[in-house]
Amino acid sequence: MTTGTMTSSATRVIGSWGLDEYLDRARRVVEEALAAFLPNVEEGPEAVCPSRLARAMRYSLLGGGKRLRPVLCLMAAEACGADPSAAIPAACALEMIHTYSLIHDDLPAMDDDDLRRGRPTCHKAFDEATAILAGDGLLTLAFEVIAREVQPPLAALRCVRILAEAAGPLGMVAGQMADLEAEGSTEDGTLAELEAIHRRKTGALLRAPLQMGAAIAGADDDRAEALDHYGKAVGLAFQIVDDLLDVQGDEAKLGKRVGKDSELGKWTYPRFLGVDGSRRRARQLAEEAVGALAPLGDRADGLRGLALALLERDR
Amino acid sequence: MTTGTMTSSATRVIGSWGLDEYLDRARRVVEEALAAFLPNVEEGPEAVCPSRLARAMRYSLLGGGKRLRPVLCLMAAEACGADPSAAIPAACALEMIHTYSLIHDDLPAMDDDDLRRGRPTCHKAFDEATAILAGDGLLTLAFEVIAREVQPPLAALRCVRILAEAAGPLGMVAGQMADLEAEGSTEDGTLAELEAIHRRKTGALLRAPLQMGAAIAGADDDRAEALDHYGKAVGLAFQIVDDLLDVQGDEAKLGKRVGKDSELGKWTYPRFLGVDGSRRRARQLAEEAVGALAPLGDRADGLRGLALALLERDR
Repeated sequence: MTTGTMTSSATRVIGSWGLDEYLDRARRVVEEALAAFLPNVEEGPEAVCPSRLARAMRYSLLGGGKRLRPVLCLMAAEACGADPSAAIPAACALEMIHTYSLIHDDLPAMDDDDLRRGRPTCHKAFDEATAILAGDGLLTLAFEVIAREVQPPLAALRCVRILAEAAGPLGMVAGQMADLEAEGSTEDGTLAELEAIHRRKTGALLRAPLQMGAAIAGADDDRAEALDHYGKAVGLAFQIVDDLLDVQGDEAKLGKRVGKDSELGKWTYPRFLGVDGSRRRARQLAEEAVGALAPLGDRADGLRGLALALLERDR
Repeated sequence: MTTGTMTSSATRVIGSWGLDEYLDRARRVVEEALAAFLPNVEEGPEAVCPSRLARAMRYSLLGGGKRLRPVLCLMAAEACGADPSAAIPAACALEMIHTYSLIHDDLPAMDDDDLRRGRPTCHKAFDEATAILAGDGLLTLAFEVIAREVQPPLAALRCVRILAEAAGPLGMVAGQMADLEAEGSTEDGTLAELEAIHRRKTGALLRAPLQMGAAIAGADDDRAEALDHYGKAVGLAFQIVDDLLDVQGDEAKLGKRVGKDSELGKWTYPRFLGVDGSRRRARQLAEEAVGALAPLGDRADGLRGLALALLERDR
């Protein structure tokens, strides 16, 4: 890992070269760290991690993606005055949890998707058993990486708790279950019910990076609350844009099928608010997120830029 | 949870009434705590945890079982002079990980089992999607419970790491993958390869309770190493007896099908060592485990009794 040089260059980049360059750089740093945290592919019965499992985990975790949750975590730590490289292990743990959830959500028994990030899903590239185990492995490895790598120890423990609560049976797993139930439901939901699903299914794991970054930086309550407010608003805005992309997005750029939500009768924002109403709501939330960052000063410029850029994303 | 009274009574029980009574009592305490850590079943769209998910997690986690890993953890803490009730959250986390692994292993894509502990497996009682999510939920909840409940904080962090390493892609998940691959293999394995599978598939999660109990009790290196040695030996002995029960066990007592290992062409101890040779090896390991406890004195009598009792188990 060559993360030592990141702070100064990352800070400089965001100041003078803009957001895209910062994001590219952060993604490269995170991807290098992710690769280093994964078990190596060794063949033969003496391999500590069976090669098929190691290959499946690498295939899914290193197969591209926006790395949004890691970037949010690095930016949050930086916004509180910490060296963002201190947040790299936590950032990687967030991406491991996100990736495990995609692997399991794509399974035939769940959303039954064949394509993810423009490539066959894990169970298509390998098989169902391997995909289940690769997901279980990444979920477990996320907590190992935090416990082993995050400093100081009390921040590590705080991160374990934040991540487990966000990802667990009152968080992301609950959201996925509620989403599956809503899909099968003949009744029409309400906007409040849709938001309750999204708050858990995607919102919780978009809020966690901000809380974890704040914990690692040892942020005071004001800053931590500002970041949490930002995280909640951005999480919802992100999901609205996701729903819009399923209606209007470009399949090639997205690397997955579009139009699937409405085929499945899923509750989406465009269904409740229309396309224009959904756009307005997303912008309003992004502006709320930017406004929440006032106590953090210039150091939060990366987060401000990101909130607005997410409105324009096409993948 | 009424765990306050456990220490004195548990200690007394093991001294004067014997192992069975101690185990019954420990199981009751653990089961009460497990029930308290699980999300409640609430109906309706406002439920924090969807009722189907909460019911599935409760069905599998509270559906009986030997509670061997929790008991080992309580006994290890006690053997190092701690109040065993201090180890209850960690003990519960171990059982959550064990139960999640059973739910996922039973899935059609994995071992495809319909019966577990005498009842339909989770995906039979609910459905596959719910079973996958119930497993994911229990796995994640295990780390939440440790981070939130184990004291002191540094012991909690140590427990997160021990448990994640034991359960993750170099531990239990690797073992399950290797086991699936061995099953499909046309080549005959060696005893060393079989032991390498078991060391990860079941051994790692039987060793972890001893390490976690020692961490919670703040044990010195000598005691921690003695317990770890015990854990490794007992873990292997346990697996040998498991293989023997699949050959000679009583389906009604076991609550699952017997003879399945050989049907599937699984590598087992009886296949390599014969029935009598396997029995001898299990006894040898149990005696090694008892011998390892010498530095711990009388307080380890529970663990000594348990190692020998596991040889005679019929479920």
